[in-house]
Amino acid sequence: MVRTDARVAAGGGKAVLTQAAKTMAAAMDDAFDALLPVPEDPRRKLYEAMRHAAIGGGKRLRPLLVRATGDLFHLDEDALVRVGLAVECIHVYSLIHDDLPAMDNDDLRRGKPTVHRAFDEATAILAGDCLHDLAFEILVDERTHSDPFVRCELVRALTKASGPVGMAGGQMMDLEAERTPFDLPTVTRLQQLKTGAIIAFCVEAPAIMAHVPLEARTGLHGYARDIGLAFQIADDLLDVEGDEALAGKALGKDAAAGKQTFLSLLGVARARHQAQFLVDQAKAHLHDYGDRAALLRAIADFVVERDR
Amino acid sequence: MVRTDARVAAGGGKAVLTQAAKTMAAAMDDAFDALLPVPEDPRRKLYEAMRHAAIGGGKRLRPLLVRATGDLFHLDEDALVRVGLAVECIHVYSLIHDDLPAMDNDDLRRGKPTVHRAFDEATAILAGDCLHDLAFEILVDERTHSDPFVRCELVRALTKASGPVGMAGGQMMDLEAERTPFDLPTVTRLQQLKTGAIIAFCVEAPAIMAHVPLEARTGLHGYARDIGLAFQIADDLLDVEGDEALAGKALGKDAAAGKQTFLSLLGVARARHQAQFLVDQAKAHLHDYGDRAALLRAIADFVVERDR
Repeated sequence: MVRTDARVAAGGGKAVLTQAAKTMAAAMDDAFDALLPVPEDPRRKLYEAMRHAAIGGGKRLRPLLVRATGDLFHLDEDALVRVGLAVECIHVYSLIHDDLPAMDNDDLRRGKPTVHRAFDEATAILAGDCLHDLAFEILVDERTHSDPFVRCELVRALTKASGPVGMAGGQMMDLEAERTPFDLPTVTRLQQLKTGAIIAFCVEAPAIMAHVPLEARTGLHGYARDIGLAFQIADDLLDVEGDEALAGKALGKDAAAGKQTFLSLLGVARARHQAQFLVDQAKAHLHDYGDRAALLRAIADFVVERDR
Repeated sequence: MVRTDARVAAGGGKAVLTQAAKTMAAAMDDAFDALLPVPEDPRRKLYEAMRHAAIGGGKRLRPLLVRATGDLFHLDEDALVRVGLAVECIHVYSLIHDDLPAMDNDDLRRGKPTVHRAFDEATAILAGDCLHDLAFEILVDERTHSDPFVRCELVRALTKASGPVGMAGGQMMDLEAERTPFDLPTVTRLQQLKTGAIIAFCVEAPAIMAHVPLEARTGLHGYARDIGLAFQIADDLLDVEGDEALAGKALGKDAAAGKQTFLSLLGVARARHQAQFLVDQAKAHLHDYGDRAALLRAIADFVVERDR
């Protein structure tokens, strides 16, 4: 009976997630469309490039995480969408820059040509830079939170998550990984920076907005750490076993670049087991939140079950 | 007698500026040195690249403008240095990205190899991105201002000055200028975005910090607009007549790229006259501030008298 209930709950979680993801995808597209009207002047291409990258694609996993964590604290939905939008700005900017020829040299992203392929490299660099600014502009706006101290804390947390002690630092390590055979602790550290820091921000931000004291955030921090690593292991598995058409990007690149990954270090069976272990552990961290954490639990399951 | 007094005052202004510039150069180098300790891990190169670009070079004109405007309102010097540091982060990040092969393709900057020449393109892109984050991280810190509302306003103003309606939008126009023969109003608009927006932030930021009401900032806005354009005309003149060794970068590039500039549109004589007219007008905007604006006046003179 317990198993059946759990399965029903998981099925219900999946339906809730599907609906929430659909709503969030529309909210992101609408928000970017409103924020980025194409001007009739020589900056036209810059705005078109930002729209190309930001609108109509992606899982919107990070905004969903923000919204799902917001459910725990009964936060205003519009404010959560704004914070999700800021995170998505950072995420999209990082995809644009990481796809550049000097970095990962990718031609396809979210099933479309990458920005430097659809436009040109200079425009791609600038479009990334502008989305980077936009993230912080959104956060400091009073519509994001009425308390300016909270808005400052959000900016502070996102700069940390995005800069050299976060995402960009992780990308630097990832570039070095092509030259140096990293061991498991170093690969773990790399991924905690490259994808983990922004995922951690997504659950930290609503806690900041709800004035949750630091000592009461331990469960959320554990959840973010665990799904962040599970997400990356799943990514490594998809890179080897996935469908390029579904993924909307080139796969098999890590092995071709000779990079050590969770997969190359653990093997398929142990990697898959480890990902599931992390997801179960992530959900255990949510124990105190009961039903309000249903969406966060569904996201944890999705992280390893997804096909793209 | 009036002329003599004015000349003495101008001479005094120059001495004050030389001393302030020296102090600011040391303060910037010290601050960047403290902010960017090189870690013993695979992110080492990223930090070395940021240090290469940020330490030991440049006129530090933007931090000086912040400090000089702060003199009008008796603001705390450490706080002004922090705001100057944030602006310099944005300025240096933009130089790194603008120098990239896909953009202006420059090999030399501030008398040293550009970041992508000293390191590589991927590291240059990431180093720029990290300095971009650092700017906002510095602004939201409580050491910049005790009032979080003011810190939010500073972030908001700097994102505007740096993004698509400011510097990055201007750089996009500048890239288009190689393809399209712009007229004088369009070149003016280009430069107001590309260099003017950040210069305007430098005088706006202390006004925000001192809670100066918007209607009392008209003179400062006029000053910034005028020296911004004068700065660019002087840059155009230096691009044609300057000394590459002093400039520390390649010159003569605009003509080679077939771009319309103030110089190509006005000719040398009218351009030089216009720059001096703008400087005089800029100083007239400072009339109400009396002696407290001595440094701002000296900066206005420097903008057209400089040899680099």
